[in-house]
Amino acid sequence: MLDYVGGVLHCDGMDLVTLTSDLGAKGITTPYFLYSEGQIRDNANGYLSEIPSDLRDRIVVGYALKANPNPEILGVLRRAGMGAETVSGSEVRLARREGFPPLLIMYNGNGKEIWEILYAVKEGCLMNIDSLFDAARIARACDELATPASLLLRVKANLPQPDSVHSHGTAAGSKCGVELDDVEEVIPPLLARWAMRRRKIPRKKNFPLQSRSIQILELIKRHPLMNLVGLHSHLGSTITDPSTLVENFRFLAGLGEKLRADGWTNLDTLNLGGGPAIDYRRDGSTHAPPPCDLMRHVVSALREAAFPWRLWLEPGRSIVGNAAVLVTRVLGTKGNAKRKQFLVADAAMTDFLRPCLPGTYHHISPVVQSRHEKHPRINVQILIFFLTKHRPSQESDEMDVVGGVCESSDAMGRNRRLPRSLPEGSLLAVWDAGAYGIVFGSNYNLRPRPAEVMVSGRGWKVIRRRETFDDLVRLYDKCD
Amino acid sequence: MLDYVGGVLHCDGMDLVTLTSDLGAKGITTPYFLYSEGQIRDNANGYLSEIPSDLRDRIVVGYALKANPNPEILGVLRRAGMGAETVSGSEVRLARREGFPPLLIMYNGNGKEIWEILYAVKEGCLMNIDSLFDAARIARACDELATPASLLLRVKANLPQPDSVHSHGTAAGSKCGVELDDVEEVIPPLLARWAMRRRKIPRKKNFPLQSRSIQILELIKRHPLMNLVGLHSHLGSTITDPSTLVENFRFLAGLGEKLRADGWTNLDTLNLGGGPAIDYRRDGSTHAPPPCDLMRHVVSALREAAFPWRLWLEPGRSIVGNAAVLVTRVLGTKGNAKRKQFLVADAAMTDFLRPCLPGTYHHISPVVQSRHEKHPRINVQILIFFLTKHRPSQESDEMDVVGGVCESSDAMGRNRRLPRSLPEGSLLAVWDAGAYGIVFGSNYNLRPRPAEVMVSGRGWKVIRRRETFDDLVRLYDKCD
Repeated sequence: MLDYVGGVLHCDGMDLVTLTSDLGAKGITTPYFLYSEGQIRDNANGYLSEIPSDLRDRIVVGYALKANPNPEILGVLRRAGMGAETVSGSEVRLARREGFPPLLIMYNGNGKEIWEILYAVKEGCLMNIDSLFDAARIARACDELATPASLLLRVKANLPQPDSVHSHGTAAGSKCGVELDDVEEVIPPLLARWAMRRRKIPRKKNFPLQSRSIQILELIKRHPLMNLVGLHSHLGSTITDPSTLVENFRFLAGLGEKLRADGWTNLDTLNLGGGPAIDYRRDGSTHAPPPCDLMRHVVSALREAAFPWRLWLEPGRSIVGNAAVLVTRVLGTKGNAKRKQFLVADAAMTDFLRPCLPGTYHHISPVVQSRHEKHPRINVQILIFFLTKHRPSQESDEMDVVGGVCESSDAMGRNRRLPRSLPEGSLLAVWDAGAYGIVFGSNYNLRPRPAEVMVSGRGWKVIRRRETFDDLVRLYDKCD
Repeated sequence: MLDYVGGVLHCDGMDLVTLTSDLGAKGITTPYFLYSEGQIRDNANGYLSEIPSDLRDRIVVGYALKANPNPEILGVLRRAGMGAETVSGSEVRLARREGFPPLLIMYNGNGKEIWEILYAVKEGCLMNIDSLFDAARIARACDELATPASLLLRVKANLPQPDSVHSHGTAAGSKCGVELDDVEEVIPPLLARWAMRRRKIPRKKNFPLQSRSIQILELIKRHPLMNLVGLHSHLGSTITDPSTLVENFRFLAGLGEKLRADGWTNLDTLNLGGGPAIDYRRDGSTHAPPPCDLMRHVVSALREAAFPWRLWLEPGRSIVGNAAVLVTRVLGTKGNAKRKQFLVADAAMTDFLRPCLPGTYHHISPVVQSRHEKHPRINVQILIFFLTKHRPSQESDEMDVVGGVCESSDAMGRNRRLPRSLPEGSLLAVWDAGAYGIVFGSNYNLRPRPAEVMVSGRGWKVIRRRETFDDLVRLYDKCD
């Protein structure tokens, strides 16, 4: 848990000023991502503890690795009983390495390469089919390995799109999934035909230029190694109303029943996609339904269904998002009351890109809130600072919190109210940094990506080390 | 030079289909960035050849490493006679390692850390002063090393802002530089005072709460190791009208003359900042003045000036931007004529983020344009393809060119006209990928960053290797 105790931010009971200073003594400098193992476990249990014991083997909560694939986090979640949702061959490989059993690994993606599919089929993971060409490639992989694959068809749900959900999530404009009523073909289904020919299946003379999803079903039906076990529909990972997920369930269940009636009797799994939003502003302006609330709705819908479906959920953001802050140090302030004021911190867009993108917001607060601040670096400067009349004022001003990257978009926050005088060396926390944080890190401006630190139990450990200069140049230096 | 010969894209005379296949044989797969050394050298010479011989020791064209710090590119530019503009300690270190002499290295930045300043001072590089706190920190570094530093003051030019220039470039809203008419102070200039005290300089009783730039000048004046040699103003790196740069020169020269009259007689250098725009749409819609044109304007303004100024220019985009393409392979197409169509490629936002950001555009074209396409992978599928009636149509359709990353913003191009049927394995080129390309690469979705390859002379070489799975996990695995 990340919260203030006596005006100082703590992580699972550990004071961040002392922690940062301890890290500094070991050469681990700011900025760094700090995770609360307790919060991660709590978030996971929000989902898992709502699963009634009789449904335990019918619901898989698969953590979306793309939010943050740190192996330590994966270990916590695997031990808690979660599965893994992956979107690349390397993510599948990491999930396997970290001990997730194949049937608890789902491999989704709209652009799977052949080596990735081969790997997932060989390992025996679940996989979605995103398009006709994807299906043809999976057929090729099954042939090559002479190994069957359990597959889910990703469909675009024709649901009225909730405002809250990401604009590209369900619209026809999404690059992911197939449309069920897509009946006019432009590009001949050559790959599908090729795949069928390879299986020496006689081609129907009147092979219809039908919907791609129907073609995919034809392809699967004729392919002895492709086993359609489910349907998948994802509405984005920013759900604010649990009923959105219930509607998605009903859409998939309705489609599933139709397909089962058509003879697809292996089809018993519905993947409902991603999870709830986060209240990034931390002011209640975004309704972020707690996981337990979401699960109650889903469980009750599942009980009402005619068929005993198996369910997959793929939360990522709601598992790790609020479990971390980015800890950064003030380098200085500039500007004046009439003009814009800037607080320059040692964290920048290369460390945490998300807050610098248009339309996003991450809360920022000083690690030490009280008047009598506990300074991380008690040095001559700060002593002088206190000996003069210029004690840090508790008045606040609007300022842009910027980093040191040579780019105008490098601002973690615009027009934020922060104490007027935060001296050099003061620590700031950028909140909700656990999901889509370190994963978007770059080496722009030749900056090293920051460390990740986790507080677990009564101690802390570095769970990803900070890059060094040698790391920055090694891909150049050893090209062969 | 990157251009089409007989309908096939060539780089310095080398056919990209053959090149990609040769690379593939050595395990270097798509996507990869491909650079033309010839184009880079041409771009550099566009600047350098316009410098008259009598001005050769008065004009430095410093390549902005942030556009692309590849050591091989740095080598080409250093040998051509360019300097280096850097924005981080690691960039300074790399520039030194690659043989740039200290006085041809400029270190700019609004958030320099003390170790970075110490390094630049020790090496004897030029450095800009971005703010009062920056000046105080530089003073501290000079004290600590007992070493002098040659400094330029970065100022915000109060110029009417050309439409063409990046909106944050010169406005008061920019985080970089000091405002000369900034006369009301809110935060006491403690660091400046502290720095003066350390030098045992008696503080004037009526120390005025003046403009920060004036305070910075006070600080420098009283500090025996801080040597103000110049002024710096940057208007963005997307200049479309050479007169913008001339105005910037006149602004700086005017200010410089005033300061020289005030006794700042070491001040003889003006840094005019970044360079011209690129016509990313490749249709003439953006006027991208050629470097030689820019230089002619600057040289003529320099000759007209009363004082024999020394000049710095800091182009980055215009040196490497058009010298590279990102080469990517088609994984498949989906969608139909009524709905949106998608071309899924093996390059994604993790490889090249810039085209996926709102408001940006990069031209995309097939590597093979002719009807009788030369296929990179002549395999059974493509043979079948040709033996059927379904030859690739030359008609084109609007489609989104997307990658395989699980993110709706992962699209290198929206609504692009591309040939209707580009079979799997076809190669595409994403143009103008040399600047702000590889440097924004991330490992999101646990994807490896791509290789960089350069064609030079009659051969090619890998100048940055593609990441492997081991690269992706090594920061996790060796935390201590």
